[in-house]
Amino acid sequence: MINEMYRERLNNKSVIRDLAEYAARRGSEIGYENVFDYSLGNPSVPTNPDFTKAVIDMYENEPPMKIHSYSPTLGITAVRETIASSLKRRFGLDYEAKHIFPVSGAAGALAHALRAVTKPGDTVLTFAPYFPEYTPYVNDTGAVLKVVPARTEDFQINFSEFEKMLDSDVAAVLINSPNNPSGIVYSEDTLKQLSSMLGDAEKKYGHDIFLISDEPYREIVFDGKKCPYPSRYYPNTLSCYSFSKGLSLPGERIGYIAVNPAASGADILVPIFGQISRGIGHNCPTSTMQLAVAKVIDETSDLSVYETNMNLLYDKLVELGFTVVRPGGTFYIFPKALEDDAYAFSKKAMKYDLILVPSDNFGCPGYFRMAYCIDTEKVERSLPVLEEFVRTEYGR
Amino acid sequence: MINEMYRERLNNKSVIRDLAEYAARRGSEIGYENVFDYSLGNPSVPTNPDFTKAVIDMYENEPPMKIHSYSPTLGITAVRETIASSLKRRFGLDYEAKHIFPVSGAAGALAHALRAVTKPGDTVLTFAPYFPEYTPYVNDTGAVLKVVPARTEDFQINFSEFEKMLDSDVAAVLINSPNNPSGIVYSEDTLKQLSSMLGDAEKKYGHDIFLISDEPYREIVFDGKKCPYPSRYYPNTLSCYSFSKGLSLPGERIGYIAVNPAASGADILVPIFGQISRGIGHNCPTSTMQLAVAKVIDETSDLSVYETNMNLLYDKLVELGFTVVRPGGTFYIFPKALEDDAYAFSKKAMKYDLILVPSDNFGCPGYFRMAYCIDTEKVERSLPVLEEFVRTEYGR
Repeated sequence: MINEMYRERLNNKSVIRDLAEYAARRGSEIGYENVFDYSLGNPSVPTNPDFTKAVIDMYENEPPMKIHSYSPTLGITAVRETIASSLKRRFGLDYEAKHIFPVSGAAGALAHALRAVTKPGDTVLTFAPYFPEYTPYVNDTGAVLKVVPARTEDFQINFSEFEKMLDSDVAAVLINSPNNPSGIVYSEDTLKQLSSMLGDAEKKYGHDIFLISDEPYREIVFDGKKCPYPSRYYPNTLSCYSFSKGLSLPGERIGYIAVNPAASGADILVPIFGQISRGIGHNCPTSTMQLAVAKVIDETSDLSVYETNMNLLYDKLVELGFTVVRPGGTFYIFPKALEDDAYAFSKKAMKYDLILVPSDNFGCPGYFRMAYCIDTEKVERSLPVLEEFVRTEYGR
Repeated sequence: MINEMYRERLNNKSVIRDLAEYAARRGSEIGYENVFDYSLGNPSVPTNPDFTKAVIDMYENEPPMKIHSYSPTLGITAVRETIASSLKRRFGLDYEAKHIFPVSGAAGALAHALRAVTKPGDTVLTFAPYFPEYTPYVNDTGAVLKVVPARTEDFQINFSEFEKMLDSDVAAVLINSPNNPSGIVYSEDTLKQLSSMLGDAEKKYGHDIFLISDEPYREIVFDGKKCPYPSRYYPNTLSCYSFSKGLSLPGERIGYIAVNPAASGADILVPIFGQISRGIGHNCPTSTMQLAVAKVIDETSDLSVYETNMNLLYDKLVELGFTVVRPGGTFYIFPKALEDDAYAFSKKAMKYDLILVPSDNFGCPGYFRMAYCIDTEKVERSLPVLEEFVRTEYGR
């Protein structure tokens, strides 16, 4: 019998996907180069050539049996060692191979991390604005996702609301910095206060509360800064990384979970991830991708285009009178819409072939997201169109 | 808080893995070439060179943005079309792209198929002897795996026991032909009778009962025969395929589910798989592996060594007086042990550096599995050792 829960979900349309599909259809009418498609968070720069070279070298020179054989259940040991030593060098935590679990991208990471530290019925808190896929990611584990309202002045954490919601049912807190959709990077102060409140709650309620840190945008940070690494501030942290954005490999489904060496159960969490894999059909990311990213562990694609695009858009949005927080990283920006109904705003923008995603699904109504992982030339051409849209529709 | 259910599982040791680890340790003492390691089902032949060429060509000549971008949620359309037309050509069912869902290997296939057609509390039946990982694969969906006892004379289906267990709670039946661990291929007669009984039960109980057919060994069939394709005999069939064995790519996690075009909900099952992916963190097999296997869709590795090895072992086992059913495919054979306690038998064999897996975990005590995906030269050298073991320990 077909599972009714999943069947019913077929009726829930994704706003982002609908807009992306509309953009593609519109592109086939007027040329996709004329559609200012800010809908999808797909990397727009090629992977690092060293990655391509590493893969070709592997296929040309390594025995097929070696590169294509089953990965050990917990990942290829040498790869885990490489990841651990890179993280240790960069962030100063005493990672060893036993703390690293290779996964099939951030979705795979979250599927394991969430199941490992929650049980059905537990609460997982996250902070608006948030990636809408967190809802099925969390709820399909049996835990319940609850969303702390946004602090809209800077999109750091709304600690007063967080405090109210941090009750004894909370087993895990899920953060995403640099953030999709706001582009904001959590400051050191934010992470310190978060850590302090979580530590207090652990004492108060007498159980561990894990911080699950979703970090696919960690390498896309602007103004020459570094993204504060959440695990440095709170021991019970599971850092979930994907190479999809930093190396422009979203289709290759490769990332890892790094368990803070000082976390409760730091020595058994990775074996627990291995147990979880069996039931969810994960069985490791591909062996060749594990081997390949290990060869370019400290490299990224040339990510500078995202900062260029952000500055162009941010300056124009400010000029046009938008309320907007300047992103510290990612390839997203999240301005306030010019009317309360972000859907209506987005709909009007479509008349100008501007594809903007209304923010309601991100848990923060009245805003819109622009994913500026597109060519700079197109961003530049979109600016006068954005201006025309705003002046015509909103008289600015 | 660490999930206690998964934590407890850390204490459950896998017999197969323990034996494989013992074999590796023993190999480091006496040279692995002197350990007759029949423990693990790892392909022992290289992948097809055309596959390697196709991947290198793709990396050298295709734009990185094209080959590494996100796969659509339901898989790359052109790849799904290629798989559908290959299956249609080979098995005569009217597959279209919409019936095909690329997955990360057989584990990924089963994770989706099981969730799609069962709900928590439903019964899933399988037949002994069976792959022990079916237990977590099924039970972690919330459904309950029940095992129909073996028909030991030929390891086809024990229909009288099946009939007793086929009650109204049964939502799905899980088969594996060619079979791990018995090596048996289900005959046309078996599949016809299974189909007939399932059809009767559907009418009697008034709901669909899906056949989930796990077919990673489909291309490894002996004596020039073909494996009868279960979906041809029963419309409500989900065929779960992995390229891991036929193309020797177990680490690359690439396979598919093919929904019989005449199944109930044939048009919505693949979209339902897409919904399931979100919660289990699947998000498609890698884009490059989807593209690569599509380029060699009707090719396999040179699989002939498995038949050579099977014949050597089968003839010797018969000569030594073992009760053994001749495998029709796979790289497994499943003889009756020479004493009731297969663990004791396996333990005695270890004294001769023969690594044989006792059968209790396969739901069929008193037998042992030999995985003969090893070099023929080693199989040949193992035969006098097997003889010495049997003569010395059992006076044969």
